[in-house]
Amino acid sequence: METISENACFGGVQGVYSHRSDSCDCDMTFGLFLPEEAQHGPVPVLWFLSGLTCTHENAMVKAAAQGWAAEQGIALIFPDTSPRGEGVADDEAFDLGQGAGFYVNATQKPWAPHFQMYDYITKDLTDLVFEKFPLDASRQAITGHSMGGHGALTIAMREAGRFASVSAFSPICNPTGSDWGRKQFEAYLGSDKAKWVGHDASLLMADRGFDGPILIDTGTKDQFIDLLKPETLAQAAAAKRQQIIFRMQPGYDHSYFFVSTFMEDHISFHAEALYA
Amino acid sequence: METISENACFGGVQGVYSHRSDSCDCDMTFGLFLPEEAQHGPVPVLWFLSGLTCTHENAMVKAAAQGWAAEQGIALIFPDTSPRGEGVADDEAFDLGQGAGFYVNATQKPWAPHFQMYDYITKDLTDLVFEKFPLDASRQAITGHSMGGHGALTIAMREAGRFASVSAFSPICNPTGSDWGRKQFEAYLGSDKAKWVGHDASLLMADRGFDGPILIDTGTKDQFIDLLKPETLAQAAAAKRQQIIFRMQPGYDHSYFFVSTFMEDHISFHAEALYA
Repeated sequence: METISENACFGGVQGVYSHRSDSCDCDMTFGLFLPEEAQHGPVPVLWFLSGLTCTHENAMVKAAAQGWAAEQGIALIFPDTSPRGEGVADDEAFDLGQGAGFYVNATQKPWAPHFQMYDYITKDLTDLVFEKFPLDASRQAITGHSMGGHGALTIAMREAGRFASVSAFSPICNPTGSDWGRKQFEAYLGSDKAKWVGHDASLLMADRGFDGPILIDTGTKDQFIDLLKPETLAQAAAAKRQQIIFRMQPGYDHSYFFVSTFMEDHISFHAEALYA
Repeated sequence: METISENACFGGVQGVYSHRSDSCDCDMTFGLFLPEEAQHGPVPVLWFLSGLTCTHENAMVKAAAQGWAAEQGIALIFPDTSPRGEGVADDEAFDLGQGAGFYVNATQKPWAPHFQMYDYITKDLTDLVFEKFPLDASRQAITGHSMGGHGALTIAMREAGRFASVSAFSPICNPTGSDWGRKQFEAYLGSDKAKWVGHDASLLMADRGFDGPILIDTGTKDQFIDLLKPETLAQAAAAKRQQIIFRMQPGYDHSYFFVSTFMEDHISFHAEALYA
């Protein structure tokens, strides 16, 4: 692991690090905010998965999360959204290839073998951060924005028992029923739709749900709302009798101005679960 | 004036607008955050002047200011740092020309006639925003970062009576005694150093001071601290018996991670003066 930068931030440290990922077979970069409390022992962790076109950096600089995390003594992890580099496939579209890993393990060329973002998040980066930093593996929560909201919800439901709580900002809720999903799942996972269902938050909700609290915020003026399909997840969660706070926020769009506005709520929500 | 974008943000609106500047003889872009209270009448205003290389956008997305401004019912203005466009002179160095206007009116070619940032901020943009938006001209405060801290301090002292309070994050404090200043003042104002003194915060402090409270934060690990010379301003302010809170923050550097960390303090500080 290599340290790219470390900046003092809200009494703690905002770091950026790179490391070799075996799953993605390339170098990956991530951000990690450690609150002051980490100097004295392991702290709880909130994962923040980012959306289409983002790197590790967008949420790290635009989501205004560190202040609230510092107040709660919680670390924040900001992973990248895809493998990167010269040998890694890409596409001219912003919503496929680099910056658009969709948190799945690709089985189809040219995306296999590098595009293994599910394993990257849940194995490679997990192993690394708990080995290298004072983080408490028994107290993890996860959130994300847009494609990262999809990642947070699907990973939380699939990795049962690992996360105390999950939240999402304007998540892609039903990728198998949307152009933000079908295109990418076909490219990464192939045309057999049976392979898609395990990565659809609405279908996972109907099938198994989440053993903990969920918080979801979406703006009523979100310019991508027809692609996000929050109504499908809301229906599935209610039908499942899932513990959930599902909010439609009047007037807000898909931007980080929306994310930062409700960041305090999300971090307080996770803190309650992490310190329960 | 043209609306570039408007996003809901902390109950208010984060807008970006462009307009023709007569002083700079080009189109200029600025950001404006209006809190919810602006729907019911004019609100106080905090100007945020940005540093080298920045546009209107950097602080708007990275300084985490809107949440605190919303809490206090204060508007935020984020101007650009120089004229822009094809007919506007530039330099290969990051600290001269576009992105580096230094908040002065250039008298030397090729910077004259476009580089008139002092008049742009204090006249053109001022006239525009008070005409177009529900802002209370009798309640204004000003802050900034780095070169923008220099701008905030010098403008506040020169425009006596206009600003209730002034603050700065890691400001350039003594440009006539630093390579962040001498180079630019010579280029923009010419080699007669008598023309420089009216744009040096430390010299203005010694000469006239500021009729209100001042708050200044600088990180002890600021990588540019030798160019900033906070010690010169601290000396001048103390010698002048100026009301000031001058803080050196241990471990912090020059980045927006530092700025965002102390934004709450700065906005609370200005709110106290604006609502006095």
